Amino acid sequence: MNKPLILVTNDDGITSKGILHLITLMKEIGEVIVVAPDRPQSGMGHAITVNNFLRVTKSAIFEGVRAYECSGTPADCVKIARHSILKNDRQPDLVVSGVNHGSNSSISILYSGTMSAAIEAAIESTPAIGFSLCDFSHDADFSHTDEMVKKITNLVLKGMPSGIALNVNIPKKNEEELKGIRICRQANSKWAEIFEERKDPADRPYYWMTGSFVNFDNGEDNDEWAIANNYVSVVPCQYDLTAHSAIPVLKKGWGLD
Amino acid sequence: MNKPLILVTNDDGITSKGILHLITLMKEIGEVIVVAPDRPQSGMGHAITVNNFLRVTKSAIFEGVRAYECSGTPADCVKIARHSILKNDRQPDLVVSGVNHGSNSSISILYSGTMSAAIEAAIESTPAIGFSLCDFSHDADFSHTDEMVKKITNLVLKGMPSGIALNVNIPKKNEEELKGIRICRQANSKWAEIFEERKDPADRPYYWMTGSFVNFDNGEDNDEWAIANNYVSVVPCQYDLTAHSAIPVLKKGWGLD
Repeated sequence: MNKPLILVTNDDGITSKGILHLITLMKEIGEVIVVAPDRPQSGMGHAITVNNFLRVTKSAIFEGVRAYECSGTPADCVKIARHSILKNDRQPDLVVSGVNHGSNSSISILYSGTMSAAIEAAIESTPAIGFSLCDFSHDADFSHTDEMVKKITNLVLKGMPSGIALNVNIPKKNEEELKGIRICRQANSKWAEIFEERKDPADRPYYWMTGSFVNFDNGEDNDEWAIANNYVSVVPCQYDLTAHSAIPVLKKGWGLD
Repeated sequence: MNKPLILVTNDDGITSKGILHLITLMKEIGEVIVVAPDRPQSGMGHAITVNNFLRVTKSAIFEGVRAYECSGTPADCVKIARHSILKNDRQPDLVVSGVNHGSNSSISILYSGTMSAAIEAAIESTPAIGFSLCDFSHDADFSHTDEMVKKITNLVLKGMPSGIALNVNIPKKNEEELKGIRICRQANSKWAEIFEERKDPADRPYYWMTGSFVNFDNGEDNDEWAIANNYVSVVPCQYDLTAHSAIPVLKKGWGLD
């Protein structure tokens, strides 16, 4: 049997520690191709490049792995891998994105470049996983993630519902071992932003966005609960944003039923 | 009774024809404040600015309207309006985004800066509408949209379910009058990209993304059908991306139930 072809991308950029870790693990499971941003793309959400061109450059930074760096966003990387780099070749059996330096749980999925790459693959009916480690440091310790990343990847390769992407968040390394996997829903939460005003040397104001995470969710079936309790959270995500339950409410309220 | 406070933003930038049109209409309905990107931000999805600072500059381009241009994305504009510009003031009763030069129907909502601003407001439980005209031209004719934009805005101000944003797409002007409003679900569709390779003056390749829209949906209850039949489509959108139906499937398949 052919080894599965695994496309690896991320949003921290091709030189980040997290993608190197993910590539090393994926090489144990399949044939790997890398198409990743040439610079950090955190917070890019599902951005694509529509008003500019893209560059794609072959990279030799990963030994024995076919790799390309791309000037675009994570979603661009998945698109250009499929429709240009692999255009006439075998298409990926799986797209994995990450391992992200920092959590992409609950509401953060909307802002996540890591997950936009996975969702882009889901749109093409390719199984996809975004892996994130709940540790934002550039030099984060990924060593405790190996077994879980491989286990989840192998489970997905055995088959999963079409048109979804998994948002996998792994607790930061601590004294305790990871307790296991929880299949969850996205927690009800938001970021409460603060804009810190500073003055530039010409005395003109500029603003840095900072903020704190606010969790409104008391359930135990959501990703925030799982991570706080040292489980790996797995949220299946879809690209249909329709609030289906609101359709009859609006039809009735607007006299259109 | 106080007039409603309406925050207007967009993704085509503060100087676009579409936002001027929307501001003019909103002034008939409420008190208007504008916080919009200082340059085009199409295709930005739900991007936010995390690795850079933001600039905010007061603008006098709209007569009698308090307006600011911001160096960030549409989602940044909504965040900085709430948490910095209006920090100690009355918060908006409604956020409207657009009128976008071009369709944001079906799958395009994921890539849409217009809708990311509206969804950002929904996260804050503020009623929100993204308006798009299915005409990409810079000099598009918005004249046939006025009654529908005002009607939908007034309906939303009367109340709608919390935590959702409306994705409103208006057919391009043609000989026939608009037939009415359809409350819809997001059509099942995708973009099939083509990457056109060119060579720069130094003979290095670069790529322009183009593509064609592929509609897999034969239903009549979706936004593509509505627009093709000269109705204004209204899709209520949520920010919970969980594929709830996949949770029990995964739990069973992975032996976790």
